[in-house]
Amino acid sequence: MITGENFIGKTRSATGSKQFSTFDPVKAKPNPEQFFVATEKEIDDAVNLAASVFPVYSDTSAEKRAGFLRAIADEISELGDSLIDCYCRESGLPEGRAAGERGRTLNQLRSFADYIETEEWRMPVIETADPGREPNPRPDLRNALFALGPIAVFGAGNFPFAFSTAGGDTASALAAGCPVVYKCHPMHAGTSEMVASAIIRAAERTGIPDGVFSHLHSQGTTVGQQLVAHPGIKAVGFTGSMGGGKALYDLAAQREEPIPVFAEMGSINPVLLLPQAMEKDAKGWADKFAASITLGAGQFCTNPGLFISEESPALDRFIGALSMFLEDKEQGTMLHPDIHQNYLRWTSLQKKQPNTQIVSDPGEKDQQYKAAPVLLTVSGLDFIKNPGLQHEVFGPFSLVVKCSGSEEVQEVINVLQGQLTATVIGNPTEMDKYSELVKDLQSKAGRLLFNGVPTGVEVSEAMQHGGPYPATTDSRFTSVGMRAIYRWVRPVCYQDCPQALLPDILKNGNPLGASRKVNGQYTTQSI
Amino acid sequence: MITGENFIGKTRSATGSKQFSTFDPVKAKPNPEQFFVATEKEIDDAVNLAASVFPVYSDTSAEKRAGFLRAIADEISELGDSLIDCYCRESGLPEGRAAGERGRTLNQLRSFADYIETEEWRMPVIETADPGREPNPRPDLRNALFALGPIAVFGAGNFPFAFSTAGGDTASALAAGCPVVYKCHPMHAGTSEMVASAIIRAAERTGIPDGVFSHLHSQGTTVGQQLVAHPGIKAVGFTGSMGGGKALYDLAAQREEPIPVFAEMGSINPVLLLPQAMEKDAKGWADKFAASITLGAGQFCTNPGLFISEESPALDRFIGALSMFLEDKEQGTMLHPDIHQNYLRWTSLQKKQPNTQIVSDPGEKDQQYKAAPVLLTVSGLDFIKNPGLQHEVFGPFSLVVKCSGSEEVQEVINVLQGQLTATVIGNPTEMDKYSELVKDLQSKAGRLLFNGVPTGVEVSEAMQHGGPYPATTDSRFTSVGMRAIYRWVRPVCYQDCPQALLPDILKNGNPLGASRKVNGQYTTQSI
Repeated sequence: MITGENFIGKTRSATGSKQFSTFDPVKAKPNPEQFFVATEKEIDDAVNLAASVFPVYSDTSAEKRAGFLRAIADEISELGDSLIDCYCRESGLPEGRAAGERGRTLNQLRSFADYIETEEWRMPVIETADPGREPNPRPDLRNALFALGPIAVFGAGNFPFAFSTAGGDTASALAAGCPVVYKCHPMHAGTSEMVASAIIRAAERTGIPDGVFSHLHSQGTTVGQQLVAHPGIKAVGFTGSMGGGKALYDLAAQREEPIPVFAEMGSINPVLLLPQAMEKDAKGWADKFAASITLGAGQFCTNPGLFISEESPALDRFIGALSMFLEDKEQGTMLHPDIHQNYLRWTSLQKKQPNTQIVSDPGEKDQQYKAAPVLLTVSGLDFIKNPGLQHEVFGPFSLVVKCSGSEEVQEVINVLQGQLTATVIGNPTEMDKYSELVKDLQSKAGRLLFNGVPTGVEVSEAMQHGGPYPATTDSRFTSVGMRAIYRWVRPVCYQDCPQALLPDILKNGNPLGASRKVNGQYTTQSI
Repeated sequence: MITGENFIGKTRSATGSKQFSTFDPVKAKPNPEQFFVATEKEIDDAVNLAASVFPVYSDTSAEKRAGFLRAIADEISELGDSLIDCYCRESGLPEGRAAGERGRTLNQLRSFADYIETEEWRMPVIETADPGREPNPRPDLRNALFALGPIAVFGAGNFPFAFSTAGGDTASALAAGCPVVYKCHPMHAGTSEMVASAIIRAAERTGIPDGVFSHLHSQGTTVGQQLVAHPGIKAVGFTGSMGGGKALYDLAAQREEPIPVFAEMGSINPVLLLPQAMEKDAKGWADKFAASITLGAGQFCTNPGLFISEESPALDRFIGALSMFLEDKEQGTMLHPDIHQNYLRWTSLQKKQPNTQIVSDPGEKDQQYKAAPVLLTVSGLDFIKNPGLQHEVFGPFSLVVKCSGSEEVQEVINVLQGQLTATVIGNPTEMDKYSELVKDLQSKAGRLLFNGVPTGVEVSEAMQHGGPYPATTDSRFTSVGMRAIYRWVRPVCYQDCPQALLPDILKNGNPLGASRKVNGQYTTQSI
């Protein structure tokens, strides 16, 4: 079933000579399949096909695209256990996680289908003409959002389903009416190819034209760079490391025609621990955060990598309990030897940073590629002086910043870089006292949460997964939730356009039955 | 009244030694006032002040900000004839234009005031918790748009009011809750300083804190570059040349923290002339387009600089009539000797492009700095081969591309770069036949208009002034109309936030009375 070939539209292709295999980190050996790195010609063909089919696909009805998205979900479902098996042996993640992530991915696809069918998301606004206006007649103006063009999507290593082949970026782009050229993450190439085949089958089953989705195998950075540099690509969605995301952002900005890149590059997700909450239940919070830090072997972009609190005996109890719970957890296998190596390198570097104290560092319990937690503490003053301590360590690593008082907490928050999330743990009675701190924390993050853990990102319209740089390259957009679709559309205004040439969403008769803002009032009525 | 000083917040400052004056192109002599180029320290102070006041200003009520915007309009109005006088002697534009543009600018400010007061533009969405959901409880999620931070705004030389000091960029940023550091256009520094003083008075009158608006005089590129590079600036609005906009875009992308730049860099605004319309009324259209091409001495970013049509006797009649009408028009004075010089240089270059034919080139009728129209023709084939013909010539220049048939028209449209506008002139009976061409034209532009002229940009919610690159740096946004505000905001999601800490827009009680999407339904009710 896994052939190692690329999909140029629906056509399988393997003309290149460079091959690679994936790795099973639990069994500590390579998987048997060989994958063919896409060639320059294959990349070019995929983008050109996407560009040529764009006018047709962007013009399909929302109903048709919704049918396509639901069919993708069904086809992925149909792959059953064989898909889960492949996921597990390419990621080292347990079956339960695989099944849960698949459920989330199917739900995501179906949610986008529901979302686009109302057409309201396209923000249609109609202002009818006023020929008698002085000094100049007012023209008829109609505006709605339209698909941007072919999108390059880069899969994330840590979410083989939800942020990969048929994940949020692909789903939102296809929902918007944009063809997708997908650059597969080499760590789970087999899983990705299986999902890609499901997308292709769904396209054929629902009459979606060839070229709306292509799937390219890659290793290293060449395929991705060529893809982003291709004039046919009009925007980029990326989830991954700071280095990778920033490199693509720079490349896209330097094109002859610069294009937008939405890169979600991770975060250390600060958690502000307020004194009363610590006083009341240090142990309970330590328990919850130990689970959050070690979830998925800590390989989440919303992993809580930083705690900020005033020094107190209660904080010491929190640190002690957190340390104990972390050491008690079963150690998860990391995604890949390279990820594991990187984790060891970064924890080692952070342990050597000036004046950090090691609280927990149990080392690996048994076999190789295990994620052993590391918990450090540092003073507020030392944290403020050392931006290096804000580097994301991908894995179950966390740092507690012990501040001399609330003023130092304030200063620590002031020096924080942009974040995906920021969390406040506090009792209702103390929240008011710290409302200014909370406001400052909001200015640093895309999502602000209270008395909970940042891992676990809800997929809904109200979600925001995107914060100030370096969490993402553009805080004005989200990569999770329905509003992720806004990355891939642009407004077009029609002035005095004959009815026959207007897109359905803007026609007088309102054939789509959409809610539209007509001369200032929302209505589903025709004009 | 004009002192030549900068405004660092409400404080006048002129610590620099570099001075410059503006120029009256009608009288062909420099104006008497001297302006002080902002120093590095002044720029730094202005941005730091904006950054420090941001938390307070972004937290003001929409009502307060609306009051501020209306007060700005009133204060500008109060300046009366002295402002118009200054505008005219710094731009060479006639009094009627000055008064019209002022009216548009006041209307813009008041429209943004109305727009933000409903709060609906912030797209509030609330999803209440579902503690019983399986497998995990659903948290309470609330999302709305919040101000991004201090914005650097660059004024446009060709619109001393509407795209300058209190123009659309400033108005939309202030409406969003963002402080503005304004880089004055040196060609109309006195006009700008007067408008800036009106903004400062309005701020004082409506209790807006110091630092929400600063005004910096500049000459050359240094002030602008330093401003965009300043870490306190979080986004940039620019209207002007391709060279200037792209340089700022590049600079912003290369910052340690890259920031979004919306640069509107002009366009040649293609006009597709369909055969029946030419057959029916070549002369009438020639008359309308001669007026559009020469309006404001051709110094508009929506100036129709390109016509595309099939060869026919009717097209020849159009060209002949257009030529005649252009030569009959009174020649307007250009904004500045440099602009005039640039126009001469570019028309001269385009006249020498391979196989262009000169149809009209009457030269200047009387005194210096007049904009003499230039009309060229070229074959479709030669146009396709020569991207240089797509360079914007700022002034009353236009090029007619004569195609051998509708297929060549198609090919010409295919090679077009991104545009602010594209226009179709056609009879109702022939539109259907050309619907594919129209669709292709739509893919190149932000606004598509029919049987009208592209000059004259309506200020309303349905407007789109922003198209694919190189018309603008981000086609997903507009710089004209109410939705220009979306450039300066980002979504923030509050998860399980206590009521007391929620911003008013998301509180259960809905104290702002906003229309909000609550669990999928729009309502103004409280929860």
